[in-house]
Amino acid sequence: MSNVKQYTEVLDKLHFENMYDNDFFLTWEKTPEELQAVFAVADALRHLRENNISTRVFDSGLGISLFRDNSTRTRFSFASACNLLGLEVQDLEEGKSQIAHGETVRETANMISFMADVIGIRDDMYIGKGNTYMREVSRSVRTGHADGVLEQSPTLVNLQCDIDHPTQTMADALHLIHEFGGIENLRGKKIAMTWAYSPSYGKPLSVPQGVIALMTRLGMNVTLAHPEGYEVMDDVIEVAKKNAEEQGCTFTITNSMEEAFRDADVVYPKSWAPYVAMEKRTELYGNGDFYGIKELEKQLLAQNAEHKDWECTEDMMRLTKNGSALYLHCLPADITDVSCEAGEVAASVFDRYRDPLYKQASYKPYIIAAMIFLAKVKNPQKTLLAMEEAAAPRWKRD
Amino acid sequence: MSNVKQYTEVLDKLHFENMYDNDFFLTWEKTPEELQAVFAVADALRHLRENNISTRVFDSGLGISLFRDNSTRTRFSFASACNLLGLEVQDLEEGKSQIAHGETVRETANMISFMADVIGIRDDMYIGKGNTYMREVSRSVRTGHADGVLEQSPTLVNLQCDIDHPTQTMADALHLIHEFGGIENLRGKKIAMTWAYSPSYGKPLSVPQGVIALMTRLGMNVTLAHPEGYEVMDDVIEVAKKNAEEQGCTFTITNSMEEAFRDADVVYPKSWAPYVAMEKRTELYGNGDFYGIKELEKQLLAQNAEHKDWECTEDMMRLTKNGSALYLHCLPADITDVSCEAGEVAASVFDRYRDPLYKQASYKPYIIAAMIFLAKVKNPQKTLLAMEEAAAPRWKRD
Amino acid sequence: MSNVKQYTEVLDKLHFENMYDNDFFLTWEKTPEELQAVFAVADALRHLRENNISTRVFDSGLGISLFRDNSTRTRFSFASACNLLGLEVQDLEEGKSQIAHGETVRETANMISFMADVIGIRDDMYIGKGNTYMREVSRSVRTGHADGVLEQSPTLVNLQCDIDHPTQTMADALHLIHEFGGIENLRGKKIAMTWAYSPSYGKPLSVPQGVIALMTRLGMNVTLAHPEGYEVMDDVIEVAKKNAEEQGCTFTITNSMEEAFRDADVVYPKSWAPYVAMEKRTELYGNGDFYGIKELEKQLLAQNAEHKDWECTEDMMRLTKNGSALYLHCLPADITDVSCEAGEVAASVFDRYRDPLYKQASYKPYIIAAMIFLAKVKNPQKTLLAMEEAAAPRWKRD
Repeated sequence: MSNVKQYTEVLDKLHFENMYDNDFFLTWEKTPEELQAVFAVADALRHLRENNISTRVFDSGLGISLFRDNSTRTRFSFASACNLLGLEVQDLEEGKSQIAHGETVRETANMISFMADVIGIRDDMYIGKGNTYMREVSRSVRTGHADGVLEQSPTLVNLQCDIDHPTQTMADALHLIHEFGGIENLRGKKIAMTWAYSPSYGKPLSVPQGVIALMTRLGMNVTLAHPEGYEVMDDVIEVAKKNAEEQGCTFTITNSMEEAFRDADVVYPKSWAPYVAMEKRTELYGNGDFYGIKELEKQLLAQNAEHKDWECTEDMMRLTKNGSALYLHCLPADITDVSCEAGEVAASVFDRYRDPLYKQASYKPYIIAAMIFLAKVKNPQKTLLAMEEAAAPRWKRD
Repeated sequence: MSNVKQYTEVLDKLHFENMYDNDFFLTWEKTPEELQAVFAVADALRHLRENNISTRVFDSGLGISLFRDNSTRTRFSFASACNLLGLEVQDLEEGKSQIAHGETVRETANMISFMADVIGIRDDMYIGKGNTYMREVSRSVRTGHADGVLEQSPTLVNLQCDIDHPTQTMADALHLIHEFGGIENLRGKKIAMTWAYSPSYGKPLSVPQGVIALMTRLGMNVTLAHPEGYEVMDDVIEVAKKNAEEQGCTFTITNSMEEAFRDADVVYPKSWAPYVAMEKRTELYGNGDFYGIKELEKQLLAQNAEHKDWECTEDMMRLTKNGSALYLHCLPADITDVSCEAGEVAASVFDRYRDPLYKQASYKPYIIAAMIFLAKVKNPQKTLLAMEEAAAPRWKRD
Repeated sequence: MSNVKQYTEVLDKLHFENMYDNDFFLTWEKTPEELQAVFAVADALRHLRENNISTRVFDSGLGISLFRDNSTRTRFSFASACNLLGLEVQDLEEGKSQIAHGETVRETANMISFMADVIGIRDDMYIGKGNTYMREVSRSVRTGHADGVLEQSPTLVNLQCDIDHPTQTMADALHLIHEFGGIENLRGKKIAMTWAYSPSYGKPLSVPQGVIALMTRLGMNVTLAHPEGYEVMDDVIEVAKKNAEEQGCTFTITNSMEEAFRDADVVYPKSWAPYVAMEKRTELYGNGDFYGIKELEKQLLAQNAEHKDWECTEDMMRLTKNGSALYLHCLPADITDVSCEAGEVAASVFDRYRDPLYKQASYKPYIIAAMIFLAKVKNPQKTLLAMEEAAAPRWKRD
């Protein structure tokens, strides 16, 4: 028995009109009510699907994806979200396409968007580039729509950039909301966003940055921990500080993993590259200095190796609230003795949390679908209730 | 408020019965009324989509695409057209598939077509090959259908071959029809299809060939201009001459860009490779003579470089009718000081025409959809009116 | 005029309840009635499609495909089957994805399956690996579903493994059923599954293995013929022997192609690699011994070359029942003087059977669709009859 009213009644109390016909770049550009609307719609869509009710908003239309890195999870999450709403995914692969041949962003953006309702981009490799590129694509297609080139205006969804990873952190947050029994229960809980050792190099900063910016927003006491030299972007630190002040929670930075873990309700130990190193790499890359990049890589791996003790072990877990903090990871994790000799997390810890980790990931398709839904549907409550009323089966299984 | 009758009434006056269950290879194999039917259906489909009315003809079915070159625009146009009509695109990538392992065309064509309603092919690299290959694929699947192998008979759409680029030129023509306020207004207008300098090598001939063959068909006065040595296929020249005679318009060939631009209503300056060079390359390629190909490439780049003055500059534009001819390009263009040091067009000219250029491109998905529609729907007027009547929303936005 | 009752009445007499929410790994794990149910549903789906009746079971949902080899036919067959039932195909390409970066099977399987209704895998290269991998994927997603990670439980379809190729052999069998006018008419017919010479190396064993195991099951007298040294898996030999005993038919192994062809009703001459060589290759590959692999390849090609006389010539065909046995091949075949100098089959033989060969292949999409249908639809008869009753057109052609 479906009852989608529980979600539409939440939506009734929220203001989120500005999300219609809008993009999703950074969580901190959205109001708290807008973020809550995403959570409510994600839950509603999942609820309808679990009750075998079709949630198609589109009879036809394309969802364009552009991945500048390899990606399984985000690729499938985006494809799932588009499919759930009735959009067919069309990948823009730079290898295959002429985008590599010097086309301007504006032109390509329009050329692929004649029937695009949404564009999802992952571009997280170079500092100052990814988010900038997404905004340029968005501006281009909005201009195209205004000029009568595009019949509809595609919505841009940030599938990970150099600054934020909103579809990941919103899925993380929705997982926490379900684990702690409501968004209000996150308030005052301690989350440790900590660096952890990995034998690989150059992992993006978007997850730790996105986490500290979003979780302070939800009133959590956030501790960011990393070895010296692994600082994240200053701008995002400022966002987290400001959020903490506004929300009456705390935001702490420390160089001690122990301090972060102590009494934490939630831990998120994960490797990343130092911001300054990523900036340097961007510069080297810009100059085509591939020798320099190789040197930088060696140096970073050596730097990482000095901090092998930053591992989420059983001993570390014992420091947390009742020794049983919820362990988060965006996956895949570097698991000691499983995927590498020494990594981010001990195998026994990872194994114990496998189930909740998979559930954490399972929210991402719904979060993406909710972001698209709120950008494409003028009256989400009416539409969700109409879907429930119509009760068109997603799958004729009987 | 939709009123699709304006388009079906045009169709009522045209004969295009032979398009049903047929292919689209070359514009000059179609009657003028058949070409007009494509324009009318393309406009009708766009009109319906702009009024948020679903134009799905298919509940399921595949649109197969085979691109022998990199392609962004045509790939997305084909995907958009298929999606608009309800077909899912499935790419036949030669890298991925066993087609490279010596299979015969006939066999592969059938093996991929068990549920294919349309096959779109781009194969423009080698003289005498692309169009021939398409016809072989078409023959193969028609035989397969006749023999009971294929339940349905897939339609072949030429997405660019060595001879013609009908989805491009038909989109170009529909753009002109809209810019000049009706197909009848093209009659007697002067269009300059001219070569232009590009620092790149081996651009296909299908666009200039397709343009001179189609625009003479529509009664335009066509001037083809290029440096000596950049001749196009003789066969297509003959087609253009014959068309001009039949339509009472002119077809002129000149080695002067100025002469072509003078008093032109429309200019289409674009680089291409000499036909004889492309023939030679095909031969070298056939012999596996990669050294020869490299030598030819050098030679062609040197030959191009002698004609850097063939650029669509502001001075050139001033020669055109009232200094304000409509500038066309199939995109991407080589823009001087933007995408290259010296190219086909001055940045200021290109910038001024960016909007109409994007609009020109925007017709391609609808042209492809119209070609498929006319091959797949027995009574287009009835079907279009029924779509309007049903008014199933493409996108439940409210 | 459609009458799907002819198929549902067959289904009424069969027990196949265990196929619901189940996988398809090996034909010999299914009961004879379950195999018959697949044939009946495949025919029913084809019948409905030929009568232009939509057979969509899904309004949205994904079909995930994972191909560890190049593949045109199976790729398109799977895509066609999914599309026929309303699922969108999403390829998991290991090159593109992070699966290559050391993720565990369990994790990836869940991460791609949040909205997957079916997963099709082809993994036939390494002995002891392919089938094992598929079962691991299936176990992973079933656990994921049980643990609340996945809302639905994806069905796994074996698109070819190291042991069996059930979608191929079931399509082969359905072809025979139609050629011989009923499944009961296969009983007592002689089929020769014989090795044939190919200039290529390392062809999988799954087809001969699958054929001897399935055709004995259907009561055919099966002769497996190959040169000494080209033995197939012992386990499957045992399956075929046991089937023959149970069905009262014969299963014979010989080193004489002539003996196999003599009086055969059906011949299936096809190259494969020796099982022991494939085992060795798997070991070499496991050790990363690429030099060893190269050596093995040379050795196998030399071994093959000793048996160039194993060719399906006109003389060989004259040995068969009335000189006109039905010739089968899974395609593509190595055709002497066409695709190679000396191959599996003479060009004149192949040409004469081109039509039936293409028809043989045409059953595969329907077999795959039927496997999915029986795993996803609780009451197939009711659903098929309801589809006929609704008569929603697949294609609005009129």
